[in-house]
Amino acid sequence: MQHFEQELAELKQQLLSMAAQADQALSNAMRALVDRDAALARKVEDDDQILDRLEIEIDEKAINLLSKAPLASQLRLITVAMKAGVDLERVGDEATTIARRARQLNEEPQLKPYVDIPRMAGMALSMLRDAVQAFVDGDMAKARAVIPRDKEVDLLNKQIHRELAGYMVENPANITRSLHLMVVAKSLERVADHAKNIAEEAVFLFEGQDIRHPSPASS
Amino acid sequence: MQHFEQELAELKQQLLSMAAQADQALSNAMRALVDRDAALARKVEDDDQILDRLEIEIDEKAINLLSKAPLASQLRLITVAMKAGVDLERVGDEATTIARRARQLNEEPQLKPYVDIPRMAGMALSMLRDAVQAFVDGDMAKARAVIPRDKEVDLLNKQIHRELAGYMVENPANITRSLHLMVVAKSLERVADHAKNIAEEAVFLFEGQDIRHPSPASS
Repeated sequence: MQHFEQELAELKQQLLSMAAQADQALSNAMRALVDRDAALARKVEDDDQILDRLEIEIDEKAINLLSKAPLASQLRLITVAMKAGVDLERVGDEATTIARRARQLNEEPQLKPYVDIPRMAGMALSMLRDAVQAFVDGDMAKARAVIPRDKEVDLLNKQIHRELAGYMVENPANITRSLHLMVVAKSLERVADHAKNIAEEAVFLFEGQDIRHPSPASS
Repeated sequence: MQHFEQELAELKQQLLSMAAQADQALSNAMRALVDRDAALARKVEDDDQILDRLEIEIDEKAINLLSKAPLASQLRLITVAMKAGVDLERVGDEATTIARRARQLNEEPQLKPYVDIPRMAGMALSMLRDAVQAFVDGDMAKARAVIPRDKEVDLLNKQIHRELAGYMVENPANITRSLHLMVVAKSLERVADHAKNIAEEAVFLFEGQDIRHPSPASS
């Protein structure tokens, strides 16, 4: 049993490594965008395979652990880790999307100084860090606190969207760049969704209460 | 053991029901768009909670089955069913997105006759049906055949995107409607991604071979 506990600790460790990798991918993608660094953008795209591999490793570990007749609470932890692995891999996909758009934006003059988009990235990243940490530490209060922050990111995305649509109407020459930046903002909004998913899974894990999709009225 | 096999069959049945519900949500969302039917769009948005509930039920069933020391092959089936449930719930989210945009598009004259977008929806839906059926029947050839079709949907999305960007440049009055339609096309592209995910999971399940993220060069 002690050996099993150690293997569970390894699974958590793998998830933490994966989270660190996803975090770095997203941070680099944002740096590539803001600094107009095409080489760094390429690196983000190339490194996406690392996250793909980490997801597969977590799946293998989890399936192996599930085959060893875990206790109910352990079983729940393992399935949550598998699901969080899927979310982190998708965060990597969003980082890749941002990196690609950064490269395309790099080929034209900058449309405007980036203020809200980096702010949005900061919010999404901090949600992601808190969600993963809450899961690993079993800190329910922290997990619960992540969830409402998703709404703030949604609002910021809508505001950025309106602003960019305004640029498009002003001048057709702005359209392509505005579209790229809309995709970037949408990707960041999805990262926040993934962070929220992980936080909800963590609450489900530790409170045995499913808080996903709480009520139709609030969605 | 026979009882356990029956419970596994029930899990598959739940997944089939969920797939039928997701299929209907997406079909209705598309019908709401093409027929400019705001009431139907509202219904899609309201019905999304059904998929949310089905996902939770599949999770509960799966966790319950995992606690009964399944054989290795059964264990794999259960985890794949859980993951497919997540994908089907997200298909419902995309249907909701399309329904919302359909309602907004309804408030203005139609930008252009819809040809490629319904075609794209048809492709995504047929991928989804084949992927779920392949999973339930254990039909590996069928599952494998779904995967390359994702690329066709991606290409069609890019083509639609270019066409809509053209409309925007032509006349700023087209911008809002073009943006809505871009979101619709992107949602359909994501549905095809989910179908591909399910197909890849099915191959993983029956061949024990992980074909997700095959090589960095091909992505």
